[in-house]
Amino acid sequence: MFFHIKELQFRAKPERPDPVFARRLQEVLGGQFGEITVAMQYLFQGWNVRGDGKYKDLLLDTGTEELAHVEMLATMIARLLDDAPVETLEEAAKDPVIAAILGGSNPQHAIVTGLGAAPTDSNGYPWNSRYTIASGNLLADFRHNLAAESQGRLQVARLYEMTNDRGVKDMLAWLLARDTMHQNQWIAAIKELEAKEGVVVPSTFPRECEVQEVSHILFNFSRGQESAQGPWAHGPSPDGGTFQYVANPQPLAPAPQLPPAPPYIYNTPPKVVNRSQNTPHIPPQ
Amino acid sequence: MFFHIKELQFRAKPERPDPVFARRLQEVLGGQFGEITVAMQYLFQGWNVRGDGKYKDLLLDTGTEELAHVEMLATMIARLLDDAPVETLEEAAKDPVIAAILGGSNPQHAIVTGLGAAPTDSNGYPWNSRYTIASGNLLADFRHNLAAESQGRLQVARLYEMTNDRGVKDMLAWLLARDTMHQNQWIAAIKELEAKEGVVVPSTFPRECEVQEVSHILFNFSRGQESAQGPWAHGPSPDGGTFQYVANPQPLAPAPQLPPAPPYIYNTPPKVVNRSQNTPHIPPQ
Amino acid sequence: MFFHIKELQFRAKPERPDPVFARRLQEVLGGQFGEITVAMQYLFQGWNVRGDGKYKDLLLDTGTEELAHVEMLATMIARLLDDAPVETLEEAAKDPVIAAILGGSNPQHAIVTGLGAAPTDSNGYPWNSRYTIASGNLLADFRHNLAAESQGRLQVARLYEMTNDRGVKDMLAWLLARDTMHQNQWIAAIKELEAKEGVVVPSTFPRECEVQEVSHILFNFSRGQESAQGPWAHGPSPDGGTFQYVANPQPLAPAPQLPPAPPYIYNTPPKVVNRSQNTPHIPPQ
Amino acid sequence: MFFHIKELQFRAKPERPDPVFARRLQEVLGGQFGEITVAMQYLFQGWNVRGDGKYKDLLLDTGTEELAHVEMLATMIARLLDDAPVETLEEAAKDPVIAAILGGSNPQHAIVTGLGAAPTDSNGYPWNSRYTIASGNLLADFRHNLAAESQGRLQVARLYEMTNDRGVKDMLAWLLARDTMHQNQWIAAIKELEAKEGVVVPSTFPRECEVQEVSHILFNFSRGQESAQGPWAHGPSPDGGTFQYVANPQPLAPAPQLPPAPPYIYNTPPKVVNRSQNTPHIPPQ
Amino acid sequence: MFFHIKELQFRAKPERPDPVFARRLQEVLGGQFGEITVAMQYLFQGWNVRGDGKYKDLLLDTGTEELAHVEMLATMIARLLDDAPVETLEEAAKDPVIAAILGGSNPQHAIVTGLGAAPTDSNGYPWNSRYTIASGNLLADFRHNLAAESQGRLQVARLYEMTNDRGVKDMLAWLLARDTMHQNQWIAAIKELEAKEGVVVPSTFPRECEVQEVSHILFNFSRGQESAQGPWAHGPSPDGGTFQYVANPQPLAPAPQLPPAPPYIYNTPPKVVNRSQNTPHIPPQ
Amino acid sequence: MFFHIKELQFRAKPERPDPVFARRLQEVLGGQFGEITVAMQYLFQGWNVRGDGKYKDLLLDTGTEELAHVEMLATMIARLLDDAPVETLEEAAKDPVIAAILGGSNPQHAIVTGLGAAPTDSNGYPWNSRYTIASGNLLADFRHNLAAESQGRLQVARLYEMTNDRGVKDMLAWLLARDTMHQNQWIAAIKELEAKEGVVVPSTFPRECEVQEVSHILFNFSRGQESAQGPWAHGPSPDGGTFQYVANPQPLAPAPQLPPAPPYIYNTPPKVVNRSQNTPHIPPQ
Repeated sequence: MFFHIKELQFRAKPERPDPVFARRLQEVLGGQFGEITVAMQYLFQGWNVRGDGKYKDLLLDTGTEELAHVEMLATMIARLLDDAPVETLEEAAKDPVIAAILGGSNPQHAIVTGLGAAPTDSNGYPWNSRYTIASGNLLADFRHNLAAESQGRLQVARLYEMTNDRGVKDMLAWLLARDTMHQNQWIAAIKELEAKEGVVVPSTFPRECEVQEVSHILFNFSRGQESAQGPWAHGPSPDGGTFQYVANPQPLAPAPQLPPAPPYIYNTPPKVVNRSQNTPHIPPQ
Repeated sequence: MFFHIKELQFRAKPERPDPVFARRLQEVLGGQFGEITVAMQYLFQGWNVRGDGKYKDLLLDTGTEELAHVEMLATMIARLLDDAPVETLEEAAKDPVIAAILGGSNPQHAIVTGLGAAPTDSNGYPWNSRYTIASGNLLADFRHNLAAESQGRLQVARLYEMTNDRGVKDMLAWLLARDTMHQNQWIAAIKELEAKEGVVVPSTFPRECEVQEVSHILFNFSRGQESAQGPWAHGPSPDGGTFQYVANPQPLAPAPQLPPAPPYIYNTPPKVVNRSQNTPHIPPQ
Repeated sequence: MFFHIKELQFRAKPERPDPVFARRLQEVLGGQFGEITVAMQYLFQGWNVRGDGKYKDLLLDTGTEELAHVEMLATMIARLLDDAPVETLEEAAKDPVIAAILGGSNPQHAIVTGLGAAPTDSNGYPWNSRYTIASGNLLADFRHNLAAESQGRLQVARLYEMTNDRGVKDMLAWLLARDTMHQNQWIAAIKELEAKEGVVVPSTFPRECEVQEVSHILFNFSRGQESAQGPWAHGPSPDGGTFQYVANPQPLAPAPQLPPAPPYIYNTPPKVVNRSQNTPHIPPQ
Repeated sequence: MFFHIKELQFRAKPERPDPVFARRLQEVLGGQFGEITVAMQYLFQGWNVRGDGKYKDLLLDTGTEELAHVEMLATMIARLLDDAPVETLEEAAKDPVIAAILGGSNPQHAIVTGLGAAPTDSNGYPWNSRYTIASGNLLADFRHNLAAESQGRLQVARLYEMTNDRGVKDMLAWLLARDTMHQNQWIAAIKELEAKEGVVVPSTFPRECEVQEVSHILFNFSRGQESAQGPWAHGPSPDGGTFQYVANPQPLAPAPQLPPAPPYIYNTPPKVVNRSQNTPHIPPQ
Repeated sequence: MFFHIKELQFRAKPERPDPVFARRLQEVLGGQFGEITVAMQYLFQGWNVRGDGKYKDLLLDTGTEELAHVEMLATMIARLLDDAPVETLEEAAKDPVIAAILGGSNPQHAIVTGLGAAPTDSNGYPWNSRYTIASGNLLADFRHNLAAESQGRLQVARLYEMTNDRGVKDMLAWLLARDTMHQNQWIAAIKELEAKEGVVVPSTFPRECEVQEVSHILFNFSRGQESAQGPWAHGPSPDGGTFQYVANPQPLAPAPQLPPAPPYIYNTPPKVVNRSQNTPHIPPQ
Repeated sequence: MFFHIKELQFRAKPERPDPVFARRLQEVLGGQFGEITVAMQYLFQGWNVRGDGKYKDLLLDTGTEELAHVEMLATMIARLLDDAPVETLEEAAKDPVIAAILGGSNPQHAIVTGLGAAPTDSNGYPWNSRYTIASGNLLADFRHNLAAESQGRLQVARLYEMTNDRGVKDMLAWLLARDTMHQNQWIAAIKELEAKEGVVVPSTFPRECEVQEVSHILFNFSRGQESAQGPWAHGPSPDGGTFQYVANPQPLAPAPQLPPAPPYIYNTPPKVVNRSQNTPHIPPQ
């Protein structure tokens, strides 16, 4: 169960309105790696943990904090949109500031949300839950969390360069710090899980059931052998095996030939689709 | 530029048709963490690498291999759909095998694709490119790749348990092994990048510009202090800082109060929306 | 800012697992009118209120409660999925319970979420934010809220009939009651706003700028005049006008004729698309 | 069955082209609350009415009219796009009108539709049918219709302020008037249904089956008690009950603890996920 | 402007309910190639025709008819859902008809639409407007129309095999005939346009501006030369050229090397991403 | 199985950066008719061919080539984004080039992809697999391929007019030529299939099972008889029938009346929804 207080976790007040930056800031609110993504992802992961203890608690702690970040960003965007002009093309042609706003802002901020934030990205694409995963396997999920925090901090850093408003930079500096923490936190949690379980997800699948001959091979499918020079091509692998490099990978199965579909499927009839009898060809599988 | 040979990288031939498993197998073909995802993700990352060298080559090697996995899965699914029945409800009620097929298969495999594979997941939801990221920051992207391979191998392992067809298990065993390699490979690459750059993405953002006071703090937002027991709450952090735990996080900014929108936005008028004058309240920001 | 406690607002514990019902229950978690929809809608509406006071507080109160309902549903679904079987087609054909599970459950609950809830609907379609609106106009938004609570309670009532598990019915009875409250609450709030502003949204748009001749006319566009018998066709209208009924609506503008596009657009050339000169026709606009 | 005449219901002819406004006008054609939404929503509701009579007829009358509005908007947008320039960046930098067009127009209007309207919103996002509902419960659906007409008229009013083209304003004035009628009409129809059925949807669900203790309670989940001052917190409720206000809501169920998943699901193993035995904790449910 | 009559174009009445077939029939109502697709596609194409005459009229004739097909399918689906049972898993396990219904039907038909049709496909995926195109180039669009009618009739034929209900077959026989007409009609219209304009779309683009050396070459990118045996590899091409076959296609441009991004983008730093100096490599472009 | 070489099929190097054109060019990379669409469509069609021979090979040849076009476009877009500025609104207001870039470029190219290409269209909408079809019926699919190549070449031609960069025009000239080939190729393949099978898809469905009375009728549903003047209204049809024109189409079935839903569906009760007894009406079906 949740409780809300109206105070913000941190300041979210720009020096002045800027509807163009409001549009851009939407990316880290409702985009692929925005705050809605991490809030929903951590909460669902937490609720789905089968068991209890510190991992569940950590997920719920962090997911709940991310809701506060959603709130900060929504507030900041509304303030950046204060009194946003909705001028005509003619007026834009006369005033370069209006022209830049007309071009760089999101018309839905005026037409749809009435100068409020939207749960969408910087191009107005709606947030959807396929940005998240809660798989029940914590090592898999924590790796996804680390990836999300890495992309998220990267985007915030880029936005930091796109403004000189001290109020906006102030809030972004907060988000950058929290993303630093969250990257650190998931790295620490991953390391602990890897120490307990091993590095390959899922750790409990019996390794003898996989085709172990190719569990440590790098196949060279793009001509040029630069990739042979990395630590992934030779020497010990993280899971205790030995990396190998195969310069000229070969197929291991013949070309497939599918039998015709039954008539009730109304595919192209076999006599039309198939090669003529006298065409030489490689024997099919 | 690409070349194709019709031979398969590995066998993709079931012992017998099974339209129910065909539906399920779609998940790792066209789902969130299916082979289309990793193929497209690695290729776009590779093409977008600014520079050349081993990382670019590694991405293109691996992305090209994933195309071969898409092909194997498409072939397997078509074979699992061989002669799939399209029976009526009445016939299903008489024959438990037909009933199970009617319920557990995807009707689009008959109606739309004519007993062929589709670029969709196990519920028929179409693949879309928001499952992928190519950010230009390799450490961020490799973490996403590792996450995708972890989720992918997890899903293949689960599917392995849902069939006793030796042909299907044979192919899944190949995919499991390759996912093992790809997890190992991205771990090795991440380790190398972290050694060069540091662990926090993006590494080049000046740390003094973030609110460093909170860069290593775990805030306890979900009641219960189990999370304080982890390595993310105390001691050294991966980036060389020191984790701290805050049991009772406090807000740092007052409740926001947004000014009214201009009349041309036609929001609820201020006199309607606002509290009456004689209502006591906390001073707004 | 938000705080979370791990206790649930109300019981969410079934008598026994039922993966088929788990799939169905997803509709009111992550569907068009599920709890994620109302949680996100109320919170964004609350954050976007320009002003303060009771409406903002009401939205934030209710949005925060809906987060607790999301949590209850996620918990219930995970429990309904306890030990869900992942049997083969052959096994399903032998056991009618397995057959029914195989057909009626969502394979992603096993393959993707590891027996956890997902932020999707009963067909596995992901939640997206276009299910919500926060327009800045409270009367418009509260009407949307009332509509959402009406559809939501309707769906919960239907689900109530699809189970005889007392634990599930117990939780649904809670949601039904809260949806009763929320319908009552939005009706009361709408009535108050209508009393202040009038019934037509937006109330501040000058009525003389619309084509008032048709502001109260019902046009009969579907043959048969049953609709003339309703209170919307004659007598006083809610906004103080008088309804009228037009049995044979006429067009008021000629058929449009669009000029050709410039050559750089590469549309079909005008000489190809247009009628021959000697074809008689109605004069274009 | 439908018949079409080529004459328009009302004028849809701008004074002059304006590709920037063409983009914006797309919102009320193919956006969440655009004319396609109401056309499809009313027609499907009408076709799905189980029974006949005035409600079915009203829905089909209005849905058929909305098709005429789709046609008017498509025509207007095509005319606003007449001879739209497709200039380069260099040319835009020299001419402020071109610059404003380059920034504010939708490139797909030139590249994809050849200066024609598209069934998308103002950011090019495609219309989809999840914007609509036809539930079989008319009171629920009419409330959704009223909400859609409220949001729709709001958006048209905002667009009215974004242009000074008299031809465009002329057409918008028509749409505003029709939206006035449709709001009035659905209010009248809702009032009639509420008089027959009661105000809570669905009216036929037995009230004793819900947890009636909380059917009229407002829970204060967002700190600050402004919401206690509204008519939804005290006094009679629209359905004949009595509203109550609970300042400090309490959870009614313990924190859930989910049992581990079976091994074939490959979640994190229980021994890894769970708290260590000697950690004190609150007894689970 | 449109008029509606309540009589149906053709019978849409099944012999008996069948919720499983109702689900399947949704594919040709709201799927990728369903009736909503062709209705919307033809109407938008018609409205966007720049000019008047027979092509515009043909599009509007056909689009308006497709609305009647949407209506017939919606009606048929509602009737197939008459009294659809919403039984529990236990009940399904006892009765094979119930079990088959539970597995093969769409739960949203009960939960969401109240036994009515939905504007979605057979897996509940919502219709969206990206299934359609109206490009302003009639030859391009008519080819898309022919493709849509071909896929549509194919799907109806497959559905025809999945039922033995004479009422359903009766209606499908109508749709099959109309799709026959529409294929014939678009073929005839395409032939007329090709005779006027030539076969390559867009016909007005100056051919000397394309790389004409490769305008008639088939490149052999998939090993095996079966494709050399078709009429597309040798002899005259439809546009008056001569097809050629290239067995071993070669790249015409060097491998690209992209310069580093500026620091404010925070990509991986150049010194990290690039190859070491002493690595031999092919000279970049 | 696939192999990749890093050389490009053709040059993809602009004279100078242009982030505005980079955004536009995305349309033919990741849009509805972009290169990802044809690559995926042809590969899945090829893999799903049931049989072998020249059609399968042709599909795989062409699909593999399209991957090279995806690569060329991704490379070109990255180069057009070289050093793209991320300036503020103030700076944009001072410099018309910056203003035009701010308005006309895609902010995600900086924030999300770090100056790399994205698998999205020109408005940032993600590519999804519903842009493709692989139906198992080659005539249906080849018609879809021809349609896609027609729309694709049309879009490239339009883009050709939007730039004066000789490097960009150079690459577009290549794509135009290849689209010319692909249109020719699919026309030739369609002609061959039609000669073998007949023109109506699917050719194997027994014609006597359709309502042959209406298999060649054009119904006049949009007032005005211009469409009667085309070759589709009179004379021989492509499939050997005779076209007819019906000026006043009539409905063939009475208005449907649906019975009420059972109580457990909670629709509007029959006594509320139905007409009063004394209302005269047309007898229902």
